[in-house]
Order: sequence, then structure tokens, then C-alpha cells
Amino acid sequence: MRILGVDPGYAIAGYGVVDADAGKVNSVTFGAVTTPSHTLFEDRLCEIYEDFTALLKEFRPDAMAIETLFHANNQKTVIAVAEARGVILLAARQKGVPIFEYSPLQVKQSVTGYGKATKKQIQEMTARLLCLSNIPKPDDAADALAVAVCHAHSSRSAQFGRRQTKRKQMGYF
Amino acid sequence: MRILGVDPGYAIAGYGVVDADAGKVNSVTFGAVTTPSHTLFEDRLCEIYEDFTALLKEFRPDAMAIETLFHANNQKTVIAVAEARGVILLAARQKGVPIFEYSPLQVKQSVTGYGKATKKQIQEMTARLLCLSNIPKPDDAADALAVAVCHAHSSRSAQFGRRQTKRKQMGYF
Repeated sequence: MRILGVDPGYAIAGYGVVDADAGKVNSVTFGAVTTPSHTLFEDRLCEIYEDFTALLKEFRPDAMAIETLFHANNQKTVIAVAEARGVILLAARQKGVPIFEYSPLQVKQSVTGYGKATKKQIQEMTARLLCLSNIPKPDDAADALAVAVCHAHSSRSAQFGRRQTKRKQMGYF
Repeated sequence: MRILGVDPGYAIAGYGVVDADAGKVNSVTFGAVTTPSHTLFEDRLCEIYEDFTALLKEFRPDAMAIETLFHANNQKTVIAVAEARGVILLAARQKGVPIFEYSPLQVKQSVTGYGKATKKQIQEMTARLLCLSNIPKPDDAADALAVAVCHAHSSRSAQFGRRQTKRKQMGYF
């Protein structure tokens, strides 16, 4: 299963594509879409939409995983980040890619197994899980890969859960 | 000049089209785009985007006027409203329609001349200015028409300001 992880933003939006199969997760590509601050905000939205549409077309993910926003995040920028997040959700929907949302706490727990992990610890663990020799740069790309890994783990648990249920139904235990 | 006024929202987004010429403002159409609550959020975003794209195509406005969002508005829904607002901004940008933003205070002052006007007073004055016999329904459409009227007034002041400057340059006063 191919997953596109997204760390939403309007100045810089991180992305990370991973392939998850049989318990292994491999990085396919990662990076960030950046938009210049001197341009009109609607031009930045348009660029984000077009770049994510191109990424979805090129890498054809089976799912998109994206961090949930909270109004408490950064009150000065949260509205603009949400507007950018809206056009990324639209791009995925238009390409028929199912969307999964995870809170920062869910990402932390899934990647490090510890809800109070620091940003640095999440990034180090993400790099280790993906067998990358260095922490991916920029930070937004590393964060996007972490969300993708979180979805890979979550799907696997769900799959395992379904198997357990089936076994139970079949009288295995 | 034709103006599309927008009151952004994800459950219900109001719109109002007005024609502003020689100090007169007339209503062309108004209404609301509504999305069903039981559908996926990304489906609702997609519907809003498609409906506003269709409105922009049908009415070919020269400008779009939209209310500014504040994180203090309604903390529970502000993120989702901003996501919907993002896809409306995108639709206007893709159709090459210039976007103008106004705060609720600017709309109040422009429509009623009074910064502490109630919602009801703004709606009544909007109806009177547009020579409508009743307050437009739903409220979101009335609010969208108010933003459109605000932009009509603002453009006229700007135009008048430019004329004054020109007259000054020409030595009239």
C-alpha cells in the first residue's frame, strides 16, 4: 500500500510517500511545496493545489494521511494553514484518494510508542523505521513521513484486528 | 461592476451577486450552497468548490468580496470553515476573479455607517439598499449580499478618491 503523508502549511507544506507491505515501510520520496511570501495568498493556494495534484498524479497513492489541525496550534497562522489544508483535501478527493486524519499525539504514539516524545525523537525514529541514514530535511518533510508511517502502522493494526475477528468467528480462539 | 459576495461556511455558504453602477447597487441573485452533514468532509469541500466554480462561470463577476475569518469566531468550527474558505478562494483564483477581503466591522460600517450595528440592522439596511421588499433568506445569503454591498461602496470611494486626486493634479482644487 502506498501512502502520501502530508504536513499542511501555506508557506511550506511537507509531503512524504511511503510503501508499506508485510510490516515493512519504505520511503519512496519526500520534500516540501514552498510558496513565496510576496505573492497573493490565493496564488499560494493555487500553487499548493496544483503541486499536490501533480504529486497525487505522479505517485498514485492508495491513501493520504494528514495531521489534524487545532485552533490552539498557532492562532496567528492557523486560519491560513487551514485554508491551505482545504485545497490539499480537495486535490486528494478529486483524485479519489481516501483521506485519513491523525492528531499529533496519535503520530507520536504510533511512531515512537511514547506520547510525550519530542519533535526530534519522532524525526529520528521515523528515519530509523524507514532505514534512512539521515533525518529527512526540511522538518516539514520529516513530519509528513511520520504521518505516513503512522497510517501504515494504523492500517496494519486494523488489518490484524480484522484477521483476529475472522479467526474468532471461525472458532480459532 | 458585478460583485460576488461570499459568507464562507462548510455546512452552508452564502452567496450574493450584485451589479454596482453609478452609485446604484442592484441584486442579481442570492442563495446558499448547502452540504449534507452525513457526508465525508472532503465530499462537502468538493461540492462547495464545484458549486462556487459554477456560480463564477454563470455570473462572471468582476470581483469577489469575502469576509475575513478570525480564530476567535467560533473555535469549534473555525478550522473547517477556513478549509471551506480555502477552496472558495481557489475557485475564484482559477477563474481569474480578483478577491477582496473585509472584516465584519468593515462590513457593518460600510452598510449601516455604524460599527455596533446588530446582525438584523445590517440585514435590513442591505435589503433597503438593494430595494428588496424582504430581508433575503437564508441569513448566510443576506450576509453575503452585505459583503458585496460593502465592496461596491469601497470601490466607489476608491474611485472617487482617485478622481479627487486627478482633479487636484489638474489644479481644480
